[in-house]
Amino acid sequence: METVLAVDLGGTTLKCAVFDATGAPLWAARHPTGRERGADAVVSTVLEVLTSMRERAVASGWPPRAIGLAVPGLVDAAAGVAVWSVNVGWRDVPLRDLVEARVGLPTVLSNDVRAGGLAEAAASGSDDVLFVPIGTGIASAHVVAGAVVTGASGAAGELGHVVVRPGGRKCGCGRRGCLEAEASASAIEARYREAGDSVQSGGSVQSGGSVQSGDSVQSGGSVPAAISAAGASAAEVARLAAAGDPVAAGVWGEAVEALADGLVSAAALLDPRVIVVGGGLARAGETLFGPLRAAVSARGSFLPAPEIVPATLGDEAGCHGAALLARPLLAGVSGLPAPS
Amino acid sequence: METVLAVDLGGTTLKCAVFDATGAPLWAARHPTGRERGADAVVSTVLEVLTSMRERAVASGWPPRAIGLAVPGLVDAAAGVAVWSVNVGWRDVPLRDLVEARVGLPTVLSNDVRAGGLAEAAASGSDDVLFVPIGTGIASAHVVAGAVVTGASGAAGELGHVVVRPGGRKCGCGRRGCLEAEASASAIEARYREAGDSVQSGGSVQSGGSVQSGDSVQSGGSVPAAISAAGASAAEVARLAAAGDPVAAGVWGEAVEALADGLVSAAALLDPRVIVVGGGLARAGETLFGPLRAAVSARGSFLPAPEIVPATLGDEAGCHGAALLARPLLAGVSGLPAPS
Repeated sequence: METVLAVDLGGTTLKCAVFDATGAPLWAARHPTGRERGADAVVSTVLEVLTSMRERAVASGWPPRAIGLAVPGLVDAAAGVAVWSVNVGWRDVPLRDLVEARVGLPTVLSNDVRAGGLAEAAASGSDDVLFVPIGTGIASAHVVAGAVVTGASGAAGELGHVVVRPGGRKCGCGRRGCLEAEASASAIEARYREAGDSVQSGGSVQSGGSVQSGDSVQSGGSVPAAISAAGASAAEVARLAAAGDPVAAGVWGEAVEALADGLVSAAALLDPRVIVVGGGLARAGETLFGPLRAAVSARGSFLPAPEIVPATLGDEAGCHGAALLARPLLAGVSGLPAPS
Repeated sequence: METVLAVDLGGTTLKCAVFDATGAPLWAARHPTGRERGADAVVSTVLEVLTSMRERAVASGWPPRAIGLAVPGLVDAAAGVAVWSVNVGWRDVPLRDLVEARVGLPTVLSNDVRAGGLAEAAASGSDDVLFVPIGTGIASAHVVAGAVVTGASGAAGELGHVVVRPGGRKCGCGRRGCLEAEASASAIEARYREAGDSVQSGGSVQSGGSVQSGDSVQSGGSVPAAISAAGASAAEVARLAAAGDPVAAGVWGEAVEALADGLVSAAALLDPRVIVVGGGLARAGETLFGPLRAAVSARGSFLPAPEIVPATLGDEAGCHGAALLARPLLAGVSGLPAPS
């Protein structure tokens, strides 16, 4: 049974899996990336993991024939080069050639969001999907007829940098009020920390210049001291909001409103059939999707309203997508040199 | 010499032209659409103009072989149906079949913005162009490798309904703060009227809830009485702004800032190589493009900044694009019935 080796490289964790030719996973594992030792260490981790996966697959009677590799940041898929990633800290790494030389299997390199989008689109059964993973940042991949729209310079899909709150919170990109600065998990954590500081010190709520400043977060709810001191995760803010904590509900509500503006704008430009929301924030389930659908619906318009559904592959979407991208290589493997 | 007949239908004016097989115009004219007599009258106008153009072309020794027809609103290009247009007031008109039956030439039906985008993209020489006509409304067409991106339901490109000023001015679509409600020619005219009313009545400036309310339009400049009474056109506001009128400059500046936010957001999502700005507002020339490029540049980011250039075909882009779309039909004309 011929197989594909798939790797999805994140900032701190590398996910890997062996898929059969039908796309079913046979085996999966996770490893630390070694990022704290620098970009070269991450490259070494990728090469070592793939070499060992290859041996394991052969020993299990699953001869691997191709590799799919999804990595964060800007990727030149045609050249097989990992161009740039803040998370990993690399620049212009010819990763495809390095992997092919070391592991001896034809390899496809892709951006992780795009790979995840392909997998979520395939899982959704729709031919036109905007995949929006929301975690530390916000990104998107528009999948039309099984392919990701890449843009003229390979940079399409930066939904996180659509301006939803002009003059709003400072974004890592240098602008203000980007969707990512207003509604990502890290934005929610920062908003909640600020709201907590403000409530505890008796001052008014700082909302970073947002146009929706303070209309729902000044209601004087108390932030649980332990969480406030340590900094609550976005998941904890979601839980507190669902439980009726007014500060958390205010912060959560502001993020949902910003997200609704971003999705409505993306839908106006792109006209996707379905918007699939994934990433860590989507794990909040109905605490996210209920208010988000309501906020989009409240922006009623003659424009077609996008259908918004949760991602189904969780944090395995990147690995599934990497495997999907590698599967077409299964036929053309014979010409490659044997591994040294 | 075989030719193509092209028609670009607007709300009040129909433009038509005869093009040779290389795309050069041989003859052109304009007619009133007859919209005030209803949608049926507009359909009649289109059919009569094309019939008479056909006779004129034949008589001139320019045998027409195909028709390209660009119309406003939602179009089902595959079915040849003009689905919906507020401007014309029609719904589900099988325009392609009506034209083919009456004029006896194979016909291509397209949306006018998309036809214009194809022509401007061809004129620009770039393979990836976002065409943004700004007039009474704001629309866009993303042309990639010679084809317009249409979206899942044919509704892609609604740049005018990207939300740039949350809670801002009321838009015809039902939402608030859409780019079209903040920066179209009609929005500029409305802003200027409001600013003039306000200055003349001594009150503070009403800016419709915009987040940038009044920071530059409260400087007490006087509005020329004749213009204020009649209502200035956007072109007049541009001229006054360029001449240093503080009220006009304030209104113009707000529109340019909103436009910069819209273009920056579109560029983040779509990554076009070039943004071609057209429509009536582009006739303001450097009064628009100077401040617009500066405003986009001031939003500096690690994202690639879009190159912004003026359209070159003016209000003839739709006609040129209709001809472009019809040109592939030149080869397949023989099977059609002769005109009755």
